[in-house]
Amino acid sequence: MANITKKVSWSSRGDESGGGERTPLLNGSEEVRYTRQLSGEGGMFHIGRLSTVDLEEDMTSDEGHHVSMSSIDGVKVCVCVFQSLDYDNSENQLFLEEERRMSFLGFKCLEISRWVICGLIGFLTGLIACCIDIAVENLAGVKYYVVKQNIEKFTEVGGLSISLILWAVLNSAFVMVGAVIVAFFEPGAAGSGIPQIKCYLNGVKIPRVVRLKTLVVKVCGVICSVAGGLAVGKEGPMIHSGAVVAAGVSQGRSTSLKKDFKIFEYFRRDTEKRDFVSAGAAAGVSAAFGAPVGTHCTTCPSAQHVPQHNMSLSTTLFSPKPRVISLSTECLVLNPVLSLCLQSVAYNLYEIPLFIVMGAAGGLLGALFNILNYWLTIFRIRYVHRPCLQVMEAMLVAAVTATVSFAMIYFSNDCQPLGPDQSEDYPLQLFCADGEYNSMATAFFNTPERSVRSLFHNPPGSYNPLTLSLFTLTYFFLACWTYGLTVSAGVFIPSLLIGAAWGRLFGILLAAITPNGSVWAVPGKYALMGAAAQLGGIVRMTLSLTVIMVEATGNVTYGLPIMLVLLTAKIVGDYFVEGLYDIHIKLQSVPFLHLEAPATSHWLTAREVMGAPVTCFNRIEKVGTIVDVLSNTSTNHNGFPVIVPVAASDDLGKICGLILRSQLIVLLKHKVFVELARSRLTQRKLQLKDFRDAYPRFPPIQSIHVSQDERECMMDLTEFMNPTPYTVPQETSLPRVFKLFRALGLRHLVVVDSENRVVGLVTRKDLARYHLGKHGLEEMQLAQT
Amino acid sequence: MANITKKVSWSSRGDESGGGERTPLLNGSEEVRYTRQLSGEGGMFHIGRLSTVDLEEDMTSDEGHHVSMSSIDGVKVCVCVFQSLDYDNSENQLFLEEERRMSFLGFKCLEISRWVICGLIGFLTGLIACCIDIAVENLAGVKYYVVKQNIEKFTEVGGLSISLILWAVLNSAFVMVGAVIVAFFEPGAAGSGIPQIKCYLNGVKIPRVVRLKTLVVKVCGVICSVAGGLAVGKEGPMIHSGAVVAAGVSQGRSTSLKKDFKIFEYFRRDTEKRDFVSAGAAAGVSAAFGAPVGTHCTTCPSAQHVPQHNMSLSTTLFSPKPRVISLSTECLVLNPVLSLCLQSVAYNLYEIPLFIVMGAAGGLLGALFNILNYWLTIFRIRYVHRPCLQVMEAMLVAAVTATVSFAMIYFSNDCQPLGPDQSEDYPLQLFCADGEYNSMATAFFNTPERSVRSLFHNPPGSYNPLTLSLFTLTYFFLACWTYGLTVSAGVFIPSLLIGAAWGRLFGILLAAITPNGSVWAVPGKYALMGAAAQLGGIVRMTLSLTVIMVEATGNVTYGLPIMLVLLTAKIVGDYFVEGLYDIHIKLQSVPFLHLEAPATSHWLTAREVMGAPVTCFNRIEKVGTIVDVLSNTSTNHNGFPVIVPVAASDDLGKICGLILRSQLIVLLKHKVFVELARSRLTQRKLQLKDFRDAYPRFPPIQSIHVSQDERECMMDLTEFMNPTPYTVPQETSLPRVFKLFRALGLRHLVVVDSENRVVGLVTRKDLARYHLGKHGLEEMQLAQT
Repeated sequence: MANITKKVSWSSRGDESGGGERTPLLNGSEEVRYTRQLSGEGGMFHIGRLSTVDLEEDMTSDEGHHVSMSSIDGVKVCVCVFQSLDYDNSENQLFLEEERRMSFLGFKCLEISRWVICGLIGFLTGLIACCIDIAVENLAGVKYYVVKQNIEKFTEVGGLSISLILWAVLNSAFVMVGAVIVAFFEPGAAGSGIPQIKCYLNGVKIPRVVRLKTLVVKVCGVICSVAGGLAVGKEGPMIHSGAVVAAGVSQGRSTSLKKDFKIFEYFRRDTEKRDFVSAGAAAGVSAAFGAPVGTHCTTCPSAQHVPQHNMSLSTTLFSPKPRVISLSTECLVLNPVLSLCLQSVAYNLYEIPLFIVMGAAGGLLGALFNILNYWLTIFRIRYVHRPCLQVMEAMLVAAVTATVSFAMIYFSNDCQPLGPDQSEDYPLQLFCADGEYNSMATAFFNTPERSVRSLFHNPPGSYNPLTLSLFTLTYFFLACWTYGLTVSAGVFIPSLLIGAAWGRLFGILLAAITPNGSVWAVPGKYALMGAAAQLGGIVRMTLSLTVIMVEATGNVTYGLPIMLVLLTAKIVGDYFVEGLYDIHIKLQSVPFLHLEAPATSHWLTAREVMGAPVTCFNRIEKVGTIVDVLSNTSTNHNGFPVIVPVAASDDLGKICGLILRSQLIVLLKHKVFVELARSRLTQRKLQLKDFRDAYPRFPPIQSIHVSQDERECMMDLTEFMNPTPYTVPQETSLPRVFKLFRALGLRHLVVVDSENRVVGLVTRKDLARYHLGKHGLEEMQLAQT
Repeated sequence: MANITKKVSWSSRGDESGGGERTPLLNGSEEVRYTRQLSGEGGMFHIGRLSTVDLEEDMTSDEGHHVSMSSIDGVKVCVCVFQSLDYDNSENQLFLEEERRMSFLGFKCLEISRWVICGLIGFLTGLIACCIDIAVENLAGVKYYVVKQNIEKFTEVGGLSISLILWAVLNSAFVMVGAVIVAFFEPGAAGSGIPQIKCYLNGVKIPRVVRLKTLVVKVCGVICSVAGGLAVGKEGPMIHSGAVVAAGVSQGRSTSLKKDFKIFEYFRRDTEKRDFVSAGAAAGVSAAFGAPVGTHCTTCPSAQHVPQHNMSLSTTLFSPKPRVISLSTECLVLNPVLSLCLQSVAYNLYEIPLFIVMGAAGGLLGALFNILNYWLTIFRIRYVHRPCLQVMEAMLVAAVTATVSFAMIYFSNDCQPLGPDQSEDYPLQLFCADGEYNSMATAFFNTPERSVRSLFHNPPGSYNPLTLSLFTLTYFFLACWTYGLTVSAGVFIPSLLIGAAWGRLFGILLAAITPNGSVWAVPGKYALMGAAAQLGGIVRMTLSLTVIMVEATGNVTYGLPIMLVLLTAKIVGDYFVEGLYDIHIKLQSVPFLHLEAPATSHWLTAREVMGAPVTCFNRIEKVGTIVDVLSNTSTNHNGFPVIVPVAASDDLGKICGLILRSQLIVLLKHKVFVELARSRLTQRKLQLKDFRDAYPRFPPIQSIHVSQDERECMMDLTEFMNPTPYTVPQETSLPRVFKLFRALGLRHLVVVDSENRVVGLVTRKDLARYHLGKHGLEEMQLAQT
């Protein structure tokens, strides 16, 4: 793995800033050594092989040029691992010409295409969610049927250990399939996918997050892991699926299938693609929760920048052109997730303090969950990064889950009479009397979704307190262990389940200790609140979750208390640790830009933040120079200011534009050269189409052959560069730079002096380095190896 | 009124751009003459005296410096009437020093203050909404009781015309009170207030929109107009009230009461105030509709710019610090508006096309409503601009409403048996048999809210089709006539009522013509859809309205169909005419910036858009020069680039900062001069507090006396100016300028040449001039009189 270190080393220096030398680091050099050691273990890369594989691709593709950060064991280091997306259109002459040619009708057609794409996204996402649902139900049904038959067979004759083994083996088998395809074929499909989508919308190009292969693995993986009885949900993967579908459909082609449908070519750029991915994620939420409204609230904030299109996606009152998607999806989903039947049970005003207490409890438990999972994840990063180990861990978890469940059921003596309505899907009689079933089995011997529903719905008395406390305890640790496994799995439903269990317990105890409590302390109501509190404590959403929960439960009455509970959970949880997704984003070392620059950072200026010196090109540049700069792996820049030399000074030229690596690559590929000998002979005319065809996987510079003669030619960048890049003076404060950067979705921000000469370049990692720690502003280190 | 013309003339030239001369106009000069004529009639100003009064204040305050646009009769003119708000912090040295002094604890305290303020806003808004509700219910109750008694008395003995007169007089009396206080005391309280708040959040300073006086008049006005039986709702005014409360509470003082509580001083700037106003509007929505979640969706898009704080207000999934407000308000509102009892009635999939048809119908009817109201409003602007005329018109409408209602009830023979549950509030027997009541009276002899509820709730058969069609027809025109009167009144509930009426009619007809239709075509369901369609057709919201309707009706089941209906209504309606609020914003001549620059505008550059030449100051400027520039009423600029002279050139200096009129005023007021004689003697130290104390109503320049000696002093602007204003090069395209401007909430954007010399200044009106018409990009004229 030694060469990874090396790769990290150069990729850490070649960053988007075009800035090779860094400003002096605040801390010493020990961290650097530490980083090297960590990287040497392959340990830097959380979703393990995801990044590693990606680094290996560096030599042949453009993927390997990233920024990353890590704070393992409190050591702040910053390595360049991730590329950024560019949400600022390059308004070069080609673009303006195309716009001039386009008629008013053309614009209308584009608008209609957008609707068509959104419709397609909604439909396909719904279809996929539907398939997942059906597959999970059927596979789990078969599994539970087989195990139930077996248990019933052996209950009387003894030898239930055979049933246990059968159950464990079945679980492990399912999970093995799910883990193998994830670990060996597409590590990007691991986890819930929500952190990845969140990063993508924030402007970080997570490699392969929106590929068809990821989608396929994700869908198969989630089916296997849910059917395999893990403590996981399928909602996160559904949201991720929606995003992938959107990215695929909106581009009108698939790289995996090597098929270009030659449609929707206009949308082949980062800005448009982001908008559709955001819509797709919304469609995914809609499909997963049957919550068409919540979707919009969900994607709205995730999208970075003045999310002009995204805003209109998610909005409303004053927005001129809303684009509602995924209307069709809801109808396709077979099982509305929760569908709570509490309509007749209203809450009382005096219960609100109780709910708030529950929210605080949820926040505490959520923080505990997150901290445990954080430690576990670090452990995994260090020691469980080989695919086979990952598969084995997943199988182990599956087997342990089955064993623990079985033990709990076996030792439980909570027998409940079998109701006339046969509401249990797989009632296990076990050692109960005839006409009774084991209550613990309702919670454990079931898909998590059904367990949640039974905790919400079942009449008072269906569970005894001991069952619930044992269930909460075991399921809490199981879920915590499970999240972060190399399987495709979400954390929504397990969180709800944990919360519903202790919420119901809370309700039961409340009814017991208060006079007349059983009248108003309906356990189902408290199960709902507990579920909200636990989920809020883990993922720390508030509004979107309120809408989703309200829509998923079909009950508006509880909108206000749910909101209060989620809010309390968030405040309490935030006091201890970040939300689970944020933790994983940090551990994945993503240069995530939050809503605002850290407070107390006004004293930092662009001069301190920027990367310098910057590699610039002249307006008419020698081809050889361009090839050399692009090939220079130690300064693997992605954006280059274009300058006009100033007569007076030597080195610094006035800025006149900005050109991207990707654009230069296309220019080189099409040999858009001016031969000096034949004094400006026709520079081949390129169209925007040529750039779009190459998007998003521009070939690496190594694959382009430039002959020695051609190296002597000149290249006129004038009509391809962005002639008016955003610039800031050196004295601009960090929050101003941050605001500009984030509001406009920039990838490069040129820093100029008072003469408009280029002095530096600010990129995402320059801004993401700073964050507010316990002792004020902290700066993470750029690893220099 | 001739001097208004003159005022318009200079305020039209003195604009925020600091640009006196305009680039050549595209159209001829006829419009200019027309404008002058219009203004001469006082007709430019829609909320009539609102703007006129404001202009009259020009001489004594800083309010009179605005931009406005009007397209009456298709003539596009642009006059400067409104000021802008500045959502970009001036990060001058004082600001940086303050931040440096502030401890980490200080920041935490600020954060807690924000929560406290939000809580206060929620509580007060809820209280106000509550008061409105109680007052309306009681006053209307008394009125209807008196009239009912009278009608019952005269039904048998004859002489019902006396009852009619009584009713009409009572209505007119209430409305007169409401209209008088609005027309004579605070014209800014007219209408629903939603367009004004929308403009405020967009960045336009609508004069007096968030003052305490406006709040008082608004509250009293809406009570009078609803109790006066007009076809109005109280929801818009509640939202406006919330915004005013927020503006007041967050500033910790009241100018109207001349009381400064010396708290929350940190929040005395445009950015913070806007955030709180947005929260207050959300609290208003919550209070009005009992919809705590919808609130967030509502304010989210209305806020301009990367609404970082606002986003966090309205969000969620990935937002780090949500600030949820108005949680308490819902509990305070006594009557949930709609509370639909359709929980048991689900819709069928095959009904969805029917709902879409209803949506289209709603869009058509909404467009008709808007067009009629547009014509009416223009008529009012021209001929009904005197307060006494306005009061008389309001009284006329009240009397006509009573008369028409009475006539409809009188001639109706739709008698329904009085149910055992006495669901009618004021059942009028009239000529019906004993034990029966007049069904038409349920709709007319009631507050609009109760009528909506009865249309949703009452069992099938409560209304016959003729009653409903007559009711729809008359109420449609009454509501259309009413909106825009000089009373405080919203359009939500009347729209719902019209829609509920024809929706119910649709349902009844559907049940009649289809076999077995009465089973599934429950009229209440169609009333709900009709209400959504009509409201959507008029105001053109989609998502926020969905959430509001779902929350208000307490029914999630209909989320998807309501969304579909609203979307259809919006698409159909937008084909014909804009939404009602947008129409009124346009007629009020507000330079409203939409989400995006108009399409096909990339060929326009900053050079064409900007105002030039610009009045600049030197870094150390003579006091006399500053006073002269500020006093110059023909160039009533608000922002001035600060320049460093360049040796080589004569006139153009390099930009080194930007200073605002308000800052200069404070500097002059505190005599922050450097006396040359005593070679830079202590320039008095100012603090940010001095600027905050003057915010937002900085004294006019005329009120500051500067002696002849002082005129010879110099003023050092260095530590007060914003040292890094955002700049763009001249070649920047309009969409880029627009994006920057709107994303960052700017008020002034400096345009520089390649040498960083100031060549122009872009302000709001420069951008708002352009819009996409039927024939491509259109530019509105700047009226030059």
